Amino acid sequence: MQEVNQNLSLTHLNDQGDAQMVDVSGKSQTLREAIAACQVRMTLATFTAIAAGNAPKGDVLGTAKIAGIMAAKQTSNLIPLCHPLPLGKIEVNLIPDAELPGYQIRATVVTKAETGVEMEALTAVSVAALTLYDMAKALEKSMQIENIRLLSKTGGKSGDYSVKELK
Amino acid sequence: MQEVNQNLSLTHLNDQGDAQMVDVSGKSQTLREAIAACQVRMTLATFTAIAAGNAPKGDVLGTAKIAGIMAAKQTSNLIPLCHPLPLGKIEVNLIPDAELPGYQIRATVVTKAETGVEMEALTAVSVAALTLYDMAKALEKSMQIENIRLLSKTGGKSGDYSVKELK
Amino acid sequence: MQEVNQNLSLTHLNDQGDAQMVDVSGKSQTLREAIAACQVRMTLATFTAIAAGNAPKGDVLGTAKIAGIMAAKQTSNLIPLCHPLPLGKIEVNLIPDAELPGYQIRATVVTKAETGVEMEALTAVSVAALTLYDMAKALEKSMQIENIRLLSKTGGKSGDYSVKELK
Amino acid sequence: MQEVNQNLSLTHLNDQGDAQMVDVSGKSQTLREAIAACQVRMTLATFTAIAAGNAPKGDVLGTAKIAGIMAAKQTSNLIPLCHPLPLGKIEVNLIPDAELPGYQIRATVVTKAETGVEMEALTAVSVAALTLYDMAKALEKSMQIENIRLLSKTGGKSGDYSVKELK
Amino acid sequence: MQEVNQNLSLTHLNDQGDAQMVDVSGKSQTLREAIAACQVRMTLATFTAIAAGNAPKGDVLGTAKIAGIMAAKQTSNLIPLCHPLPLGKIEVNLIPDAELPGYQIRATVVTKAETGVEMEALTAVSVAALTLYDMAKALEKSMQIENIRLLSKTGGKSGDYSVKELK
Amino acid sequence: MQEVNQNLSLTHLNDQGDAQMVDVSGKSQTLREAIAACQVRMTLATFTAIAAGNAPKGDVLGTAKIAGIMAAKQTSNLIPLCHPLPLGKIEVNLIPDAELPGYQIRATVVTKAETGVEMEALTAVSVAALTLYDMAKALEKSMQIENIRLLSKTGGKSGDYSVKELK
Repeated sequence: MQEVNQNLSLTHLNDQGDAQMVDVSGKSQTLREAIAACQVRMTLATFTAIAAGNAPKGDVLGTAKIAGIMAAKQTSNLIPLCHPLPLGKIEVNLIPDAELPGYQIRATVVTKAETGVEMEALTAVSVAALTLYDMAKALEKSMQIENIRLLSKTGGKSGDYSVKELK
Repeated sequence: MQEVNQNLSLTHLNDQGDAQMVDVSGKSQTLREAIAACQVRMTLATFTAIAAGNAPKGDVLGTAKIAGIMAAKQTSNLIPLCHPLPLGKIEVNLIPDAELPGYQIRATVVTKAETGVEMEALTAVSVAALTLYDMAKALEKSMQIENIRLLSKTGGKSGDYSVKELK
Repeated sequence: MQEVNQNLSLTHLNDQGDAQMVDVSGKSQTLREAIAACQVRMTLATFTAIAAGNAPKGDVLGTAKIAGIMAAKQTSNLIPLCHPLPLGKIEVNLIPDAELPGYQIRATVVTKAETGVEMEALTAVSVAALTLYDMAKALEKSMQIENIRLLSKTGGKSGDYSVKELK
Repeated sequence: MQEVNQNLSLTHLNDQGDAQMVDVSGKSQTLREAIAACQVRMTLATFTAIAAGNAPKGDVLGTAKIAGIMAAKQTSNLIPLCHPLPLGKIEVNLIPDAELPGYQIRATVVTKAETGVEMEALTAVSVAALTLYDMAKALEKSMQIENIRLLSKTGGKSGDYSVKELK
Repeated sequence: MQEVNQNLSLTHLNDQGDAQMVDVSGKSQTLREAIAACQVRMTLATFTAIAAGNAPKGDVLGTAKIAGIMAAKQTSNLIPLCHPLPLGKIEVNLIPDAELPGYQIRATVVTKAETGVEMEALTAVSVAALTLYDMAKALEKSMQIENIRLLSKTGGKSGDYSVKELK
Repeated sequence: MQEVNQNLSLTHLNDQGDAQMVDVSGKSQTLREAIAACQVRMTLATFTAIAAGNAPKGDVLGTAKIAGIMAAKQTSNLIPLCHPLPLGKIEVNLIPDAELPGYQIRATVVTKAETGVEMEALTAVSVAALTLYDMAKALEKSMQIENIRLLSKTGGKSGDYSVKELK
């Protein structure tokens, strides 16, 4: 599950150790996809309340989903060294998990660009989770957003990456 | 550590179940503080590389910190039902944790306003962590952002909240 | 229904005719509310499709509503001479109107500030309507957004304003 | 004047009825243009005042025009499921119409991209109209923004679209 | 003309040398004003062209002015450690200076807040100047933006500040 | 050092003198680079304080650098008639200059696009300089940002441009 680049140079740091944006202008545009995930853990009472209150109109989950999609489009404004990219597809899903209890959140982002969209997918799940927290925080402040992680990336010359998860 | 509001109504949903922004215009301005935290877990190799590469100029941590501060100011643009608020103070710290291995991230936000700044503090630690991920992802894609949570909030009529953590 | 200021000076223009932002720094903060409205007219086929497709999860209307709320918070970034204001409440509703056929959109914005929130309410209904158009434009490009107007404003020394509408 | 897609599926809704962004990453880039329009209706007194006050420097119309151009560039940040696109040209014009009385507003947007720019053109006329309202609202609050509509779109595989208008 | 604080601590750096936002939440709101200035130097040919081309509609100067006003509202999003503030007034003027040749730009910003608006005024003149450069750069790329500086600030406990300029 | 276009038409003004965005949709994408520069002049006392206070963590310069990079990505949102562009590389450097005394700031921006990135490079140095001012203004308000200028541009059919500077 762990992938470590043995060439231990931080590509965002130049020779003097200063932060810098990696130059991607010479790379060719290829189709790239990234999938990220996280989960929001809460008490059973909160989980039940969201399920019940949400039933008629689905607004908690719908709002969190829209927030995640819109946040993916803000990624390069939030993460200082991210490149602004055209985005072909952003999909965010929140899946109830009664065992957690809480919600599993998944985001898939696709682009045809010179660099990947890992940060866009990670930003989408993070903001969807923060929005879920915001909408339920009057019920419970002890909710936790857990395990924001990259599930897979494809496309690009650095090779594909994929986490093996049971679920 | 868990606080559950027994009056299980979602204040962001109105009677019809639609999403809505809570009306705070009639509340008085009081001094409010919120502290949030999370951690970024990585391999020892990545942790060592950041420590070494970061030594001369501190740019990985410095960049993540600035990103967290700037993101706190974007909270109401990211979280759909958050109120735009003046912010009196935003502080973000990244503390190396060799046992994790990785980084502990803390954010403190202070305002004098009609409503609290929990979401600003949670957004700050989230984006600081995403930025750390971005700057080290060429080394390791399996890093995880863990346990984004509210440590405490003070001020406001709903009462103070505080998590008891050993650390 | 029409209110015309007989003192025909454009307060956004200074003596030389240049655009300027009105100085509100000397005004006192009072509670202010503005309500705006518009409608989106479509064919019966489109109206029926939205009603049907929307039934299970309510996403067309839910998405338009969230877009309207978030746009109200962007008003001072979109309208050059608008003042950035704290906003205490933003409410957006989309009401199906089978006779139109289409949707009636209403937005209410409340603030405690030195100047009013008419533009925030008007921006909210406009962007909610544009979002509805976006989500249904694959069905029909001839939809029209009609009669974006201020229904009422209260608070502030310029006096209250209210449109008398039958509906 | 009306175009209705007989295949009544809302492409922004997936099989479960959730809101989603349409995947355009597999489409090829083609030159696309969209033209939108609306009008701002006002009293003759307001129309005359804008004409007179505006004469020396043209700021009301100039400001509204700039606001419309800048808003077109914010479209994907305002409309949740719009794709961020490069924009090759944005043109906004405000034409006085003494018969209305008021202003006719037209926007043309051109891109070379995987999807069209209808929403960018519609957003441009909407925000130009809102800005005109803002700059003249001290004179008259009963102004109305009318008939925001798509006049034409060209380029893209879904075919061209054009409204037949007398004017 | 120079004011040097003999207590040579950088208030944006905490004890560990990290960047931080100064806490202003305990300060009281007072009326504050800041005036900033700069100039854009160009060849006589460019100056003459702007004067001539600008005559009928004033768009070069009008566009630069609007850009400066809108940029002032973005200050806290651009300058990492600036506080988001309500702004009561923003005024930007571009004055032709045939001797330079070029334009003198002045911005005045007023707020009632816990901290000053020097950065808002400086940002306004900077972006107005950049916009002027953008609109004339097809004529001359060697234009220079010179002497962005604070002319005065009033209000706040750190005392007033004023530059003595001959002009 | 001065380049003047003898064809004295302002390409941002159309035949009627209105501001307009130049249509670049028919141009082909080529690799383009722009380099801009400016300097921040301060007293020796301020220069010494920044050098000393900055030594342990480099935050003043690091923060200004990040602000410059992030601002380059906001260029088309700040400058009304700039085209939104993908950016392949943004590099910002602040070099201490004891003779000034103060800092020399340089920014290099690279894109593969239909139009150039002069404004992005100029915006980057401007905001980096404004950030430096902000972080040191408690020490000295009389700092000046000087000579914001384009050093070179390459790529594009209008030809290369380069300033001959001694330094």
